[in-house]
Amino acid sequence: MAIRLRLLILLVAILCVESKYMVYNTSQTIVPGKINVHLVAHTHDDVGWLKTVDQYYVGSNNSIQGACVQNVLDSIVPALLADKNRKFIYAFFQRWWRDQSEEVQSIVKQLVSSGQLELINGGMCMHDEAATHYIDMIDQTTLGHRFIKEEFGVTPRIGWQIDPFGHSAVQAYLLGAELGFDSLFFGRIDYQDRAKRKNEKSLEVIWRGSKSLGSSAQIFAGTFPDAYEPPSDSFYFEIDDYSPIIQDDFNLFDYNVQDRVNDFVATAISQANITRTNHIMWTMGGDFKYQYARTWFRQMDKLIHYVNQDGHVNALYSTPSIYTDAKYAINESWQIKTDDFFPYGEKENAYWTGYFTSRPALKGYVRMLSGYYLAARQLEFFKGRSDSGAKMDILADALAIAQHHDAVTGTERQHVADDYARHLSIGYEEAEKVVAASLACMVESTPKTGCRSPCPLLNISYCPPSEVDLSHGKNLVVVVYNSLGWNREDVIRIPVINANITVLDSGGKEIESQLLPLANASVGIRNFYAMAHLGKVPSVTPEYWLAFSASVPPLGFSTYVISSSKRAAATSGIQTVHKSKGNQNNTIEVGPGNLKLIYSGKEGKITHYINSRSKVKEFVEQSYSFYSGNDGSEDLQASGAYVSRPNGTHPIKSDGQVSFTVLRGPLLDEVHQRINSWIYQQITRVYKGKEHAEVEFTVGPIPIDDGIGKEIVTQITTTMKNNKAFYTDSNGRDFLERIRDYRKDWRLEVDQPIAGNYYPINLGIYMKDNRTELSILVDRSVGGSSIVDGQLELMLHRRLLRDDDKGIAEALDETVCVLDECTGLTIQGKYYLRIDPLGEGARWRRSFGQETYSPFLLAFTEQDGNSWKKSHIQTFSEIDPSYSLPDNVAMITLQELEDGTVLLRLAHLYEVGEDKDLSVMASVELKKLFPNKKINKIAEMSLSANQERAEMEMKRLVWKVEGSSPEEPKVSRGGPVDSTKLVVELAPMEIRTFIINFSH
Amino acid sequence: MAIRLRLLILLVAILCVESKYMVYNTSQTIVPGKINVHLVAHTHDDVGWLKTVDQYYVGSNNSIQGACVQNVLDSIVPALLADKNRKFIYAFFQRWWRDQSEEVQSIVKQLVSSGQLELINGGMCMHDEAATHYIDMIDQTTLGHRFIKEEFGVTPRIGWQIDPFGHSAVQAYLLGAELGFDSLFFGRIDYQDRAKRKNEKSLEVIWRGSKSLGSSAQIFAGTFPDAYEPPSDSFYFEIDDYSPIIQDDFNLFDYNVQDRVNDFVATAISQANITRTNHIMWTMGGDFKYQYARTWFRQMDKLIHYVNQDGHVNALYSTPSIYTDAKYAINESWQIKTDDFFPYGEKENAYWTGYFTSRPALKGYVRMLSGYYLAARQLEFFKGRSDSGAKMDILADALAIAQHHDAVTGTERQHVADDYARHLSIGYEEAEKVVAASLACMVESTPKTGCRSPCPLLNISYCPPSEVDLSHGKNLVVVVYNSLGWNREDVIRIPVINANITVLDSGGKEIESQLLPLANASVGIRNFYAMAHLGKVPSVTPEYWLAFSASVPPLGFSTYVISSSKRAAATSGIQTVHKSKGNQNNTIEVGPGNLKLIYSGKEGKITHYINSRSKVKEFVEQSYSFYSGNDGSEDLQASGAYVSRPNGTHPIKSDGQVSFTVLRGPLLDEVHQRINSWIYQQITRVYKGKEHAEVEFTVGPIPIDDGIGKEIVTQITTTMKNNKAFYTDSNGRDFLERIRDYRKDWRLEVDQPIAGNYYPINLGIYMKDNRTELSILVDRSVGGSSIVDGQLELMLHRRLLRDDDKGIAEALDETVCVLDECTGLTIQGKYYLRIDPLGEGARWRRSFGQETYSPFLLAFTEQDGNSWKKSHIQTFSEIDPSYSLPDNVAMITLQELEDGTVLLRLAHLYEVGEDKDLSVMASVELKKLFPNKKINKIAEMSLSANQERAEMEMKRLVWKVEGSSPEEPKVSRGGPVDSTKLVVELAPMEIRTFIINFSH
Repeated sequence: MAIRLRLLILLVAILCVESKYMVYNTSQTIVPGKINVHLVAHTHDDVGWLKTVDQYYVGSNNSIQGACVQNVLDSIVPALLADKNRKFIYAFFQRWWRDQSEEVQSIVKQLVSSGQLELINGGMCMHDEAATHYIDMIDQTTLGHRFIKEEFGVTPRIGWQIDPFGHSAVQAYLLGAELGFDSLFFGRIDYQDRAKRKNEKSLEVIWRGSKSLGSSAQIFAGTFPDAYEPPSDSFYFEIDDYSPIIQDDFNLFDYNVQDRVNDFVATAISQANITRTNHIMWTMGGDFKYQYARTWFRQMDKLIHYVNQDGHVNALYSTPSIYTDAKYAINESWQIKTDDFFPYGEKENAYWTGYFTSRPALKGYVRMLSGYYLAARQLEFFKGRSDSGAKMDILADALAIAQHHDAVTGTERQHVADDYARHLSIGYEEAEKVVAASLACMVESTPKTGCRSPCPLLNISYCPPSEVDLSHGKNLVVVVYNSLGWNREDVIRIPVINANITVLDSGGKEIESQLLPLANASVGIRNFYAMAHLGKVPSVTPEYWLAFSASVPPLGFSTYVISSSKRAAATSGIQTVHKSKGNQNNTIEVGPGNLKLIYSGKEGKITHYINSRSKVKEFVEQSYSFYSGNDGSEDLQASGAYVSRPNGTHPIKSDGQVSFTVLRGPLLDEVHQRINSWIYQQITRVYKGKEHAEVEFTVGPIPIDDGIGKEIVTQITTTMKNNKAFYTDSNGRDFLERIRDYRKDWRLEVDQPIAGNYYPINLGIYMKDNRTELSILVDRSVGGSSIVDGQLELMLHRRLLRDDDKGIAEALDETVCVLDECTGLTIQGKYYLRIDPLGEGARWRRSFGQETYSPFLLAFTEQDGNSWKKSHIQTFSEIDPSYSLPDNVAMITLQELEDGTVLLRLAHLYEVGEDKDLSVMASVELKKLFPNKKINKIAEMSLSANQERAEMEMKRLVWKVEGSSPEEPKVSRGGPVDSTKLVVELAPMEIRTFIINFSH
Repeated sequence: MAIRLRLLILLVAILCVESKYMVYNTSQTIVPGKINVHLVAHTHDDVGWLKTVDQYYVGSNNSIQGACVQNVLDSIVPALLADKNRKFIYAFFQRWWRDQSEEVQSIVKQLVSSGQLELINGGMCMHDEAATHYIDMIDQTTLGHRFIKEEFGVTPRIGWQIDPFGHSAVQAYLLGAELGFDSLFFGRIDYQDRAKRKNEKSLEVIWRGSKSLGSSAQIFAGTFPDAYEPPSDSFYFEIDDYSPIIQDDFNLFDYNVQDRVNDFVATAISQANITRTNHIMWTMGGDFKYQYARTWFRQMDKLIHYVNQDGHVNALYSTPSIYTDAKYAINESWQIKTDDFFPYGEKENAYWTGYFTSRPALKGYVRMLSGYYLAARQLEFFKGRSDSGAKMDILADALAIAQHHDAVTGTERQHVADDYARHLSIGYEEAEKVVAASLACMVESTPKTGCRSPCPLLNISYCPPSEVDLSHGKNLVVVVYNSLGWNREDVIRIPVINANITVLDSGGKEIESQLLPLANASVGIRNFYAMAHLGKVPSVTPEYWLAFSASVPPLGFSTYVISSSKRAAATSGIQTVHKSKGNQNNTIEVGPGNLKLIYSGKEGKITHYINSRSKVKEFVEQSYSFYSGNDGSEDLQASGAYVSRPNGTHPIKSDGQVSFTVLRGPLLDEVHQRINSWIYQQITRVYKGKEHAEVEFTVGPIPIDDGIGKEIVTQITTTMKNNKAFYTDSNGRDFLERIRDYRKDWRLEVDQPIAGNYYPINLGIYMKDNRTELSILVDRSVGGSSIVDGQLELMLHRRLLRDDDKGIAEALDETVCVLDECTGLTIQGKYYLRIDPLGEGARWRRSFGQETYSPFLLAFTEQDGNSWKKSHIQTFSEIDPSYSLPDNVAMITLQELEDGTVLLRLAHLYEVGEDKDLSVMASVELKKLFPNKKINKIAEMSLSANQERAEMEMKRLVWKVEGSSPEEPKVSRGGPVDSTKLVVELAPMEIRTFIINFSH
């Protein structure tokens, strides 16, 4: 042991001394009056991109990209121990952490608490800001922040979104200020914007991302002069990097200390010339750097030592926190920035707006599971968290990682996309067990086997549990769970094989139902994709969709029993119109309720939207086009996974076989249209009780026989005079005004009239004129725009044959294979269209938006005879039966945490001024929300629940802004929660986060 | 301090545990009866190749090659500390060592003494084995071995010549067995040879490299099945390497333990199938690997753990020592291998025989300084070593590094060759100060300013100290030092500007001298290269070479005084014959002494060699040719720095201006010939007192206007019937028989009839028939052969325009630039030709060979009037005036070491049976060698002087060879040295090394 200890002491020497003859002075701190160069050592380790997250971690598949995160973390620890002045920042490392011994963990905790190792951003990943929903962003950040809090007792202070491809308002105010962050740094903004900001020294600003929350949720935001790498080619120090190292040994040739110092000083001065205050930050790292951390520190030690010896500028090891505090200490006033940083034009003709739509199937899967995860956590909470918590964690992790800026964005390689999907699928499978167990507990009087049997493939009309033969006395029980805080009525559609069936509601009363024949096109998709994903064609083919209307209480369920019957359910009336059948000048009116869609019988096209209640009547056309993808032959800038660069707009004409079939019934009418051979099904549904049209499109395989990649868009054309303006949401939350060919922050040079006007959509897009507003809501993130007045368009699918030169080195050419034959991926999705009188659209966008995010959760079981009703609860709500959430509030998180406390998040759904009735302070009565539980203690937390809100507010830096007057309008916020009354107030756009202790 | 200590304890944890959940068992040792896979972790760090040695060390110039030796060594130490089972071998690391703190040094010493870090080979570099002189090999190895002995107290046991391009007999017996090595491993042997050895399981043999020393100097030698890298693409673990890592975490995807184990086992079995015994070695590393050592050990830990769990084969951390001992323990008998492994045919049409000649200027510089360094150390010893030792070390280091297998070989990039030359030049400058000071001490009665002023550029006829105007009464004193152990007479030639001068010998007597006009061609070279190297054309141009004969005692000097005189020295008679002047059928006889060369007046060509004393008369022709270099268009295998691949043989015809001029005089005759515009000077000299011809050639710039690279050769053609046989030396020591188109070890498939018959020459080449033998000695290492019977050829110069695909990625196209204009490099060199009656050639080859290696060392000073003689010693020998070394013995080292002891090496110059009189036991009387000093203690050492010879003999492993009988002929060796008599016996080819303590 003595020898071992002696060895230990010697060991430190290895780590502490770089060289026998030279001890570098790295202890420098800020020197006022000098240019202070903050050297921020960092590595940017994508959780999946060219390789899967697992491959990046262990360093396999290096032929694709030489990258091993384990190396980074293994080597950073001794490098930091070697010199206490050295600092490093890291954005995630949970996986490595899990593998470390307790002793290593102790060392790392010390490094974190001393500030040598700063954990920044702190989410599970550096999420994207365009294709992500704010609930997912919050969830993944919470997961990371709580982990860091538990392990290290620290709360990250810095937003570090260095790589995402444009930056959202929600990121700034919600996932920035509301987390308690003091600053937010990022790398990518429009090239024209950046040029102007360099000139104006406004790369660093105060960003006020929310109109509603204004100055109460602003943040110091800095974009780098360039990317997030060292400021010039001369300062890269990865193993094998090319930069000139500092050779300070007189015994060797090429001694170059003064040269290197001069280079450093010149580079610093040039950056100082475009930066406000005398503090500049150098991001000393990059993608998967620091694989042998010592290589960087060895050179930075020398730079700091010799540059400070030289004295022209001051160089120091720093972190974004130190840098932020230094900026704050100067007491400077900063420009205000509002709205967001979309779209991201990297350079002329390189607009990163294609990825808003890239990989629509993955985007759809993420969105579906996002809503599912919200409901599943509710159900887990109701049942009570047990060891099942671990099961839910898998989905939590998979969803968190899927928010990465090379995951849901669609900018990863194909095998990596497959890996994300695989993780999500495994997560879903595990979560589903929790859901089943929970539903069983709720439904059964005495818990038994439960009622599992979900239908994740319902989108391809495949649902084995509903496709049962009911002709021999079996009943099918459908349990319908509503995760919203409101009572809700919605039409359920499931495939069935019997025609003669009836539906009984929770009270045992037969309700209206409707059978819609399964279209041939749907059967084709069903068989092909079942074969592709399950390896077999289903043996039974259902003939019908059964539709019936379900009504479910808030946070509750209802059960419906489907059984055979002598007589058939109402089958839909069918009317098929073939264009080829000659000119039919008649018009066709579709819709069993207030909303009527008018089609021209001649062309089989929609012409008008008429709401008999609201008296809205609008001319409407719908069409498809494609943009041919630029092949990059001109300047290497092709259209690809990231970049949209249309090389021509091509309206998609009918191929002569346009037909449409109308199915009519008591609950809904459907219009089936075939556009061409690869948009061979579009179904427009108009429900009796709804005032929007639902459009289900089936696009693909996109043809590429002509060697040209294509982006498929659909346009809704009206005669509205929107005057270039339209509105898109920021991560599904605030709506931002967009004006075609215009940017608020600079005078735009238009080089890409289409791609340069595209914006990300997570909730919806709308436009208005002085009479009406037209809204479209989406079922996943997509790109959209208004390229000509009166028109909105969505990009639905993309298939491109060239790499767009952003590092992925693979074309975005998604295929699906059966046996050895692969064809282009077909995408099925929905959007929802509604036209309201001006000022009345928000209510639908907000409340129906929640419904699309949180569809009914269905579970199936079979029963023999009528025993079900006796042994099971038929309908139930977890909240007070007299209560539901206010129309302007949604519960976006309800989750039992590991320690038994409960995480509750309530969100006001409206912005200031958005709706004349609902953009007001709302109140939620917690006692009625949890009627069966006693709230013992409630603490309001920061958004990520890693610190109490009050503490966060106290620590927050208050920045000065240019030209701000003391009489700025007061921002409205809900008041403190009285622990007796337990009423939560929510001001417009406010999200409040609580940790609740319930009594047991 | 408490915290610091706690930190220390925690610190070990980092290094000791790879993972929290997995502790790998790496403690495996040899398991009898199983295939034992010895994982030998190593890195192969060239001391210069694509980058300079300094650049490799610090990792600069990474754009050329990503390589930083500092990384390797910095990271290997913690990696070894982390697990005591891990082992590593390293071949040199002096520079890093110098930079380390004492604490790090202590840790490393522990690692070395525990065997975890094994220092192998132990020289300053892994020297080449073709282009190196044995004295240089011994010197560089001694430097390394003594350093290791001093710092670590260990003596390397293993020869590790993994990369050199073929392997020499001298390496095996002298730089192997005579160092006390127990084994020698290497990577490169002929592809046909390797294939046969794999079949026969004879990759490992007992190599008996010396005919004379036989079994007393044999060594276990193993060549690898392939190169010196891991056995398949699957086992490379550098950062960013492509091999599949072992993924053993069930929580991640791609778990692959069994796959990787199976791959390991299959690879091991396949190697075991071609290996004798059940021990196989895997060389786990390669060029500049282990930059972050942990990446390799992390995977090898897992391999050892899981492979042994699997149990099919046994895997262990090992070293070449452990492997050697395991081989030895098996008590197997091994095949005998004699001679060497030249030439190295890597594959069909890829014979690495071009490098025998590549960069002839660098090769010449190395050889010149090698002889100089030997003399300089003698002079330093005579004066007494002082702080000047450090000065000599620079040359010692530079020469040592220049022996590297990418240095003197000419296979480095141009800027690296320049760097070696620069280091050598600096070394020379410093050594020259020691020489000057020492000569001053010896020459001056009372030490004064000394007599510096050497002439390193004498080869371009530039010698400022001799080019002084003596017409005004100044005298030029020339001090001539003889570093050989014999009295010696030789003609000195120096450029002078006065014609009317006389030369006085040490006794003040005027001696015969001769003036030879400086040819125009020589003036051209002088001016151009002076401009290139010194930046100016000399202001004075000498008109003559002054020649006079100097006689100098062994290890002593003589002085000669040159002064103006009324009458001129004997000017040479000049006879110029122009071929164009019509047919002159007369012959021209050249030579003032016994040797006459006969030229045909008609063609201006040599026709006969006649020695009137020995009665030898031979028909002789001399010619030049070039081989056009293959451009690689066929199969990428071009001629280049390494590879010779002639694409056609082109005799060099006169361009119509052939002329020759004969200069005659009392001391020597010179024949000046112009061959063509780029071999525009060849001077053949015949000295009165010598029986060989000296040929000075000037070749270049080699024309490349035709886009074709060329290799220039000269042939000596006779009517001798040598029957395919010829003889070349091994590193300047033993002569080996070569037979054209034939190999002793296998049935040769001839694919390259020229390149495949080339051999390296350091001393000389000869052939014989039943009457005579024709010998050629060289002034540097070159390649040579006998391509047709009766002919010998030397490759003199090479200029090639393609890279030969061996990694250098640069064509061997040497140029020299004046201002911005560059032309191909011109090479000036000499060879010496002699024809003896059969059996009489060895004496000249051996004794004159020593003279070419150790030419007179000249120093100059000026004097006014006749004062010199009074105040200076005129002639002196350091040894007993009555004594000189025997004709068959040379003193190859005489050097005072740092501790004041003296290193003495004596070498017998003849092989067994080489000369009827001189291949006998010789004796050296040390008392007469050091008449003025008392030998206090003498210890015979191993060749590298790092251990006593007796100790080495005792430790040496004695291997069994196949078919050896106990009655093998007894090998003759000199007996022990009696400390009273102090007589050293030397058997043929024996080299004995002593450390002597002199009394003060």
